[in-house]
Amino acid sequence: MITDAASKAAMLVEALPYIRRFRGQVVVVKYGGNALAGASNDQALSLFAEDIVLMRAVGLRPVVVHGGGPQISDLMARLGKKPEFRNGLRVTDAETVDLARMVLIGQVNPQLVAAINVHGPIAVGVSGEDAGLIRASARDPELGFVGDVSAINPTILQRLIDDEFVPVVATIGTDEHGQAYNINADTVAGAIAESLGAEKLVYLTDIEGLRSIVDDPASLIRQTTPDELDALMADGTIAGGMIPKVESCVHALRNGVRRAHILDGRIPHVLLLEIFTDDGIGTMVRDRLEQEST
Amino acid sequence: MITDAASKAAMLVEALPYIRRFRGQVVVVKYGGNALAGASNDQALSLFAEDIVLMRAVGLRPVVVHGGGPQISDLMARLGKKPEFRNGLRVTDAETVDLARMVLIGQVNPQLVAAINVHGPIAVGVSGEDAGLIRASARDPELGFVGDVSAINPTILQRLIDDEFVPVVATIGTDEHGQAYNINADTVAGAIAESLGAEKLVYLTDIEGLRSIVDDPASLIRQTTPDELDALMADGTIAGGMIPKVESCVHALRNGVRRAHILDGRIPHVLLLEIFTDDGIGTMVRDRLEQEST
Amino acid sequence: MITDAASKAAMLVEALPYIRRFRGQVVVVKYGGNALAGASNDQALSLFAEDIVLMRAVGLRPVVVHGGGPQISDLMARLGKKPEFRNGLRVTDAETVDLARMVLIGQVNPQLVAAINVHGPIAVGVSGEDAGLIRASARDPELGFVGDVSAINPTILQRLIDDEFVPVVATIGTDEHGQAYNINADTVAGAIAESLGAEKLVYLTDIEGLRSIVDDPASLIRQTTPDELDALMADGTIAGGMIPKVESCVHALRNGVRRAHILDGRIPHVLLLEIFTDDGIGTMVRDRLEQEST
Amino acid sequence: MITDAASKAAMLVEALPYIRRFRGQVVVVKYGGNALAGASNDQALSLFAEDIVLMRAVGLRPVVVHGGGPQISDLMARLGKKPEFRNGLRVTDAETVDLARMVLIGQVNPQLVAAINVHGPIAVGVSGEDAGLIRASARDPELGFVGDVSAINPTILQRLIDDEFVPVVATIGTDEHGQAYNINADTVAGAIAESLGAEKLVYLTDIEGLRSIVDDPASLIRQTTPDELDALMADGTIAGGMIPKVESCVHALRNGVRRAHILDGRIPHVLLLEIFTDDGIGTMVRDRLEQEST
Amino acid sequence: MITDAASKAAMLVEALPYIRRFRGQVVVVKYGGNALAGASNDQALSLFAEDIVLMRAVGLRPVVVHGGGPQISDLMARLGKKPEFRNGLRVTDAETVDLARMVLIGQVNPQLVAAINVHGPIAVGVSGEDAGLIRASARDPELGFVGDVSAINPTILQRLIDDEFVPVVATIGTDEHGQAYNINADTVAGAIAESLGAEKLVYLTDIEGLRSIVDDPASLIRQTTPDELDALMADGTIAGGMIPKVESCVHALRNGVRRAHILDGRIPHVLLLEIFTDDGIGTMVRDRLEQEST
Amino acid sequence: MITDAASKAAMLVEALPYIRRFRGQVVVVKYGGNALAGASNDQALSLFAEDIVLMRAVGLRPVVVHGGGPQISDLMARLGKKPEFRNGLRVTDAETVDLARMVLIGQVNPQLVAAINVHGPIAVGVSGEDAGLIRASARDPELGFVGDVSAINPTILQRLIDDEFVPVVATIGTDEHGQAYNINADTVAGAIAESLGAEKLVYLTDIEGLRSIVDDPASLIRQTTPDELDALMADGTIAGGMIPKVESCVHALRNGVRRAHILDGRIPHVLLLEIFTDDGIGTMVRDRLEQEST
Repeated sequence: MITDAASKAAMLVEALPYIRRFRGQVVVVKYGGNALAGASNDQALSLFAEDIVLMRAVGLRPVVVHGGGPQISDLMARLGKKPEFRNGLRVTDAETVDLARMVLIGQVNPQLVAAINVHGPIAVGVSGEDAGLIRASARDPELGFVGDVSAINPTILQRLIDDEFVPVVATIGTDEHGQAYNINADTVAGAIAESLGAEKLVYLTDIEGLRSIVDDPASLIRQTTPDELDALMADGTIAGGMIPKVESCVHALRNGVRRAHILDGRIPHVLLLEIFTDDGIGTMVRDRLEQEST
Repeated sequence: MITDAASKAAMLVEALPYIRRFRGQVVVVKYGGNALAGASNDQALSLFAEDIVLMRAVGLRPVVVHGGGPQISDLMARLGKKPEFRNGLRVTDAETVDLARMVLIGQVNPQLVAAINVHGPIAVGVSGEDAGLIRASARDPELGFVGDVSAINPTILQRLIDDEFVPVVATIGTDEHGQAYNINADTVAGAIAESLGAEKLVYLTDIEGLRSIVDDPASLIRQTTPDELDALMADGTIAGGMIPKVESCVHALRNGVRRAHILDGRIPHVLLLEIFTDDGIGTMVRDRLEQEST
Repeated sequence: MITDAASKAAMLVEALPYIRRFRGQVVVVKYGGNALAGASNDQALSLFAEDIVLMRAVGLRPVVVHGGGPQISDLMARLGKKPEFRNGLRVTDAETVDLARMVLIGQVNPQLVAAINVHGPIAVGVSGEDAGLIRASARDPELGFVGDVSAINPTILQRLIDDEFVPVVATIGTDEHGQAYNINADTVAGAIAESLGAEKLVYLTDIEGLRSIVDDPASLIRQTTPDELDALMADGTIAGGMIPKVESCVHALRNGVRRAHILDGRIPHVLLLEIFTDDGIGTMVRDRLEQEST
Repeated sequence: MITDAASKAAMLVEALPYIRRFRGQVVVVKYGGNALAGASNDQALSLFAEDIVLMRAVGLRPVVVHGGGPQISDLMARLGKKPEFRNGLRVTDAETVDLARMVLIGQVNPQLVAAINVHGPIAVGVSGEDAGLIRASARDPELGFVGDVSAINPTILQRLIDDEFVPVVATIGTDEHGQAYNINADTVAGAIAESLGAEKLVYLTDIEGLRSIVDDPASLIRQTTPDELDALMADGTIAGGMIPKVESCVHALRNGVRRAHILDGRIPHVLLLEIFTDDGIGTMVRDRLEQEST
Repeated sequence: MITDAASKAAMLVEALPYIRRFRGQVVVVKYGGNALAGASNDQALSLFAEDIVLMRAVGLRPVVVHGGGPQISDLMARLGKKPEFRNGLRVTDAETVDLARMVLIGQVNPQLVAAINVHGPIAVGVSGEDAGLIRASARDPELGFVGDVSAINPTILQRLIDDEFVPVVATIGTDEHGQAYNINADTVAGAIAESLGAEKLVYLTDIEGLRSIVDDPASLIRQTTPDELDALMADGTIAGGMIPKVESCVHALRNGVRRAHILDGRIPHVLLLEIFTDDGIGTMVRDRLEQEST
Repeated sequence: MITDAASKAAMLVEALPYIRRFRGQVVVVKYGGNALAGASNDQALSLFAEDIVLMRAVGLRPVVVHGGGPQISDLMARLGKKPEFRNGLRVTDAETVDLARMVLIGQVNPQLVAAINVHGPIAVGVSGEDAGLIRASARDPELGFVGDVSAINPTILQRLIDDEFVPVVATIGTDEHGQAYNINADTVAGAIAESLGAEKLVYLTDIEGLRSIVDDPASLIRQTTPDELDALMADGTIAGGMIPKVESCVHALRNGVRRAHILDGRIPHVLLLEIFTDDGIGTMVRDRLEQEST
C-alpha cells in the first residue's frame, strides 16, 4: 500500500505548481457537439464533468462553451426538415433558427449542466441572449439567421464566476431587435476567452491535435505560434472545420489570451492531464517570445 | 397641454407611495404558457416586458416564472407523438420530458428573455437545473417524469437579483441523479416566492380573477384570505387548473409571502395597474388580520 | 375604469425611459425664496416636495438649493432695519449677515426640510458652513459680507446622497476665520452642480423660461446653448436677476453638467413633467454638439 | 527644556489609558445656551471647540447638543415680544416657535459649527427636523408648541459619526404633520445619548457640580448614583433648572449610558480634564455596582 | 504514456471529493521537534513543506504548531547547562526559558517558515507572545516557567489565515506581566484547533499510530472515539509522551473539532495521503455517533 | 489643582495639530540593540513601549525595526566563539548566522513584543523570512552570510498595520533558496520606510544627533537636507556606524519618505516629544524645498 500511496502523493505534488500557477485564472473550454451526440458518450460526458468540477475545486475558473450541430440535424430530420448547407454553413431560415435555439439551449446545454451538477450546484446554463451576452449580426443574407459575433458583453459571465459558478454557454446570439442567430461555437469560445482575459482557451476535438502533414498522425504539432498557424492556413495545411478553431486561437493569442490548446477529447480526463501534469498533450499555441513550458 | 401634463403628473404622484413601499421587494410573477402560445400574442408579450422593466427600473426585484403546456403539445404533435393525460396531468415518458425540457428552456424561456432584453441587458434565463435551483422527485410512477418540488435552492436567484438582473425561470427540476422532471409552473412560482421571502406572488391568467359563483362574472372576489380559499376549494367552487394556483397562494401566504394576486393577463399593463395605482384589480389574497389596502 | 387605467399605465410607460436614463444621477434644483414667501404658497411647496420625493424614490439623487431674499427683508423690516442695495446687491453689515443666516438656515431651510419629511425621514438641512461646504470670500468691501464662492467641498453632500438622503442647502458660506457670508443662491446651485458632476441643474423661477424678446411671451426659447446665451447676455436680452442663473448655467455646462433648465415653478409638478415626460417645458440649455432631446 | 519636555511627555502618557479606553466611543456633550450668550464668551467657545476637535482627533465620537434660551428671549425682546413663562416653561405660540427655530438652528447652531470648523471641516449642524431625528408631541396644550420627545431616530447621527463628522444638534422637533416644537435641550441630550448607546453624557453648566447642601460649595458631590439622585430630587435638594439634567442622567444611566457628568463649563478645557486626566472634576454619576473610577 | 497519464488523472479524481469537502476548513498540524532535530531530516522537512503548500493551494487553511525539545537540550548542552526533569517535565528557570524561547522562536520556527517559503511567500512565524496569542500561567512553582494555557486569543491567526497566509506557531506564552513560559506544543495545538473551530487536528509523530497492545504493532487502532481513549488512558494502555496528544484530541473533539489524527510523520507525504486519498492511515479519532469515513 | 490641570490641558492642546497631521501615517522607528543590551535598560524599554502604544492609540501606524549586535556577540562569547570583524562588518559563517537568527528573532524581538503587549495585544513579531518580507543577497563572499537588501515585499507589514497591529521586525533576510542572511538593521529600516511610503523614518541612537564638528556637542545639526548630508559624508564629518543611518535617511528622503530623524534614545519619551510637541529635538532631515517645521 505504501508504494501505491507514494505514487498517489507524487501525483498530487506534481500537480502543485500548476494548481498554484492557475489559481483564479479563467479557462474557456469549447466542448464539441459531436462529443455529446452518441449514446455511448454518457461516460465521456461524465469524465469531462469531473474535470470541470476539479478545475473549479482547486480554484480555477472554467467556462464551458458548446455547440450542437449533430443534435440540430437530428431534430430537423425527426421533423422531416432537410438541412441545407452552403460552403459548409447551414442555411438557417426562421424555423431552423428556432429549432437550433431549442436544441442548443433546451437540450445540449441542460445535458452539460446536469452532468456537472451531479457533483454539486455549481453549473449555470447561459445563452447568448441572457443579459445581452452575445450581440450578433447576419453573416450573409443568403444564409439567413447565421450570425457573426458583433460584441460580447461579459458581465453575466463575470458575475457568475465571481460567485463561484461555472457558466455553460449556448451559442445563440441576438441582434438589437431581439432576433436570434445561430453562431459558430468555436468562434464564440475565442471571443469569450478574449473578453474575459482568459489564461487558456481549450478546444476539445476528436483528433489528437494539429498535424503538419494532413494524413500523417506522426506529424502532430506539439507547439506552435500564431504566425506559424497563419502560414499553415495560407498554404492549406489547415482546412475545413479546423479553420474557425485555428482562427480563433490566433485572434485570441493576439488579444490577451496566454495559451490556446487543441486537445483530443477522446482521451479520458484530457483536461486534467493538460493542465495539471508535466505531460504535454495535443497542440499548444503560444506567443513566439515566451520560453517556459505549458 | 397643461391639462394633459397635469394628469400625467397626477399619475406619477399616485404611483409614489407604491414605489416607495415596494422598493427592494421581490415580486414573483407567474406568466402562463397560454399567453405566449398564439401568434397574436406578440404585443401582449411586449407590454408584459415593459411592465417587468418598469418594475425593475423603480427598484422592485421581479422574478418571472413560466410554463409552456401548449407549446409542448405543439412540438409533440409535430413529431407525431400523442399527448396522454391522467387526472389532468401529462403522462411524461423519457422522450416527453426531453421534449418538455427543450420547449420550456429552449423556446419559451428565450422568448421571454428576448422580449425583456429589447430594453437592455437585464433578463437572464434560468432553469431549475441551474445551480440546483429546483430539486424534484417523482409525483407518481404512473405519470413518469412529472415532478413535485422537493426543495428550492434560491442561491442563483438571489445572486442574480442582487446583481440587478431579472431571472426568468423555466420549471424543469432534477433529482439527485441529474434526471429531469417537468413540474407545474404554478407550484414552482409559489415555492420560489416562499424561498425568496417575496412581498408579492402574482398569477397572470386568462380570467378576471376568482369567482364565488363559477359562472357569474359579477361574482368576482376582490379580496380573500387563505382560510376562505380553503373553504372554496373544499366545497368545489374552485376547481380544475385554478387549484395549483390557489393552493400555492394559500401555502405562500402561510409561509411569509405578504400578498398574492390572481390577475387577468389580458388587460394591458395589468401588473403596473395592480402594483402602482389605487385601483384594485383581480383577486387579492391577504392574511385575515391586516387592515390596509393593496 | 379600464380606459382610465390604460391611460395611467401609459403614463408610467412614458416615464420608463427617463427613469432608466436618470437612475443614480444627481439633479441640483434651485428653489427660489419667492416661491416660499407668500402664505398662499403652502400648496406649491407641498407639490414641490412630492416631486423631490418621487425623484428620490425612483432612484435619482436630488439636491435642493434655496435662497430667501424676501424673508430676509421681512425680518429686517420687523426689526426696523432698512435694507440697502447697491447695484442690485444687498449691503450686508455684520448684523445683516447674522439676520440673513438666521433666516436662511433657521427659517427657510427648515420649511423645505419639513415639507419633504412629511413623506419620510429623507431630507437633511445643510448650510455652507457645515463640514466646510462653501468657502467664501468678500465680493467687494463696500458690500460688507456679501460673498463669492471660493471653493466647494462637496464631501458632506456626497456622503448624504450616498446614504440616500436629500440635502437641502442654505447658501451661507464662511471664510477661513469662520466669518459668515451671504452668497447668491443661483451661483451656489451652479457651483454645487459642477462639484457633484450633476446630470441636470434646474432653476425654478416665476416666469415660463428665457425669452428672445423680453416682452414677448411668445418668444420663449425652448432650447439653447452656452454660446447663444453668452450672446444674449452681451446684447442685453438677458438682464437683471436672470443674469446669475444664466451665467451659472453657462459655466456649469462648460464644466461637466449635462443639461440646465429654467422652468416655471408656478406650474404644478413642473419638475416631474420636465424630467419624466416627453413634453418639453421651459428653456433647456445643452451643449451645441448633442443631438438627442431632453 | 528637558524638564519641561519631561512634564509634557508625562501628560501624554497620563492620557494614554483614557485614549485607549474611549476610542470609538460616543460622548454626548450638552453645551448650554448661557455659555454662548455673552460677548465675552468668544474665548470660552474657542476652548470648547478645541476640546471637541481633540476628542475627535484621538478617536472618540463626540456629539454636541445645545439650547439657546437667552438668545430666544433676546430676539423676542428686539421684536417687542414679551416672553411668558408658566411653571418655568416658556409659553410658545406659533410665532414664538418660529422665532425659537430661527435662533436655535440659524444663530446658535452655526456659531458652534463655525467655531469647530476653524480647525477643519468636521462639524455638521443638525436640527431635530433633519431626517426625522426628533419626533415631538405637545407637552401641554396651554404651553403651545413646547414639545416632549416621542422618539429619536438616530440614523442621521450614526451616519455622520460613521463618516467621522461631529454632529451639532439644535433641539427643534416635529410632529407627524411637520409642525415644529421647541424641546428642552437637557432632555434631548439624554435621549440622544441613550439612542446612540453613548459611553458618556456630559452636561456643561455654570456651577461646579451638584451639591448635597444647596448653599454650600464645599458640599460638592463627586460621585453619585441614580438611586441617590432620585432621593435628592425627592427631598428637594435638587431643584429648578437642574431637574431636567438630573432626570436625564438618571434615565440615561438606567438605559445603557455608562457614565454621566455635570461639569463646570467655566473651567478652561474642562472636557479634556475630565476625560483624559486622572483628576476627578465636577459630579460623576455611575451605576452603584461599579468600582473603577472615571 | 496514456496508461501512466490515466493513473495520474485517476489520482486527481480520487482527491476531488476531499478537496471539495475540506475547502476553506482549518487544519491544525502539530509538527514534532524530533522531526527537525536530525541532519538527515532536511528532506523530510521539505516533503512536509510541500504538503502544507498543497493544502493551502487547493483551499484548505493549514496552521502549523511545533515544539523543539531536542533543540533546546542541545543548546543547553553547548552552554554547559544540564537539563533537569521532574515527572517528565523540564525544570525551567529564568535562563532556561530564555534559551527555550530563543530556540523555538529563533531557530526551529524560522526553519519551518523558510522551508515552506521556498514555494512562495506564504508562511508567517508567530509566537504565543504575538498579539497576545497564548496567555499562560505557571503549572507548578517547582517547575519554574513551565506554563499551562490559560487562554487563546486567536485574532492574529484568524487575520493571517483570512489573508491567505500559513501561520507557523512557536509555543511560548506569556502571563499578564509579559513573563514568558514554555508550554507543551501538543497541548497548544489542541487549544488552537478548538479556538479556530478547526475541521481537523493532526499530530505527526514517529510511530504509526495508537496501539491497543503497547508492544504489538499489529494492534494499531484505526478508528476510535474520545470515550474509548479515556478508557485507554485510565487503564494505562496509553502513557508517557502520548498522553498530552491524546488528552488534547479528546478535549478538542468534545469542543467542536471534527476529527483528530495521530499519523506517522516518517511516511513521506503522510498528510496528503490522509487528507486527499481514500486510504486510511494512522489513528483517527471521531465522535461516536458519526458514520461516514475520513 | 486648577493650575496643574490647566497645564495638562495645554499640553494636550499643543499635541492636537500633530495628532491630526499624522493620523493614519506610517512611522518607522529603528530601535538599536544597544538600547536593549544592558540590565538597567528595562525602564528605557518600558518608556519606549509606552511611546509606541500612544502613537498607535492616537491613530499613527508605527513599525519598529531592531538590530541586536551586542546580544549576538554575547551569545557567541558564551559559546566560546570569537567574533571576527572585517571593515566593521561581522564575518558571518553558517553557524554565526544561525546564532544571529536565534538572537534577533528569538531573544531581542520577543523582548520588544512583550514590552509593548503589556499594554494590550497589539505587537506582532515579524522576521524578514516571514511571507518573504526581506529578500537578501550576499554582500561579499568573504563576509559569508552578511546580506544586502535585494527587495522588500511589504505585504505582511501592510496587512498587519491595516489590522491595527504594530509590527516589530527582526532583520534576518533570505535568498531564493531559503538561506538566511544577517542584514544591517539601519539599512532595513530605511528600505521598509520606503516600501511603505512612510511619513517619518526615526533612528533612536545614543548620541544627541548629528554634529557638524565631530567632537563639539554644541555643533548639533538641528535641520539638514539630503544634499548637505552627502557633503558631510564626502568630507568625512559623518563616519563609522552613523554611515548606514545617514545613507538610509538620504535614500529614503529621495524615495518618498517625508522626514527622517536621528534622535537621542536616552531621553525619556523622546519619540513623543519629537512627534507631538512644538519642541525640536535631535537632527531632522528634510527636503530642501520645504519650509514648514517638524
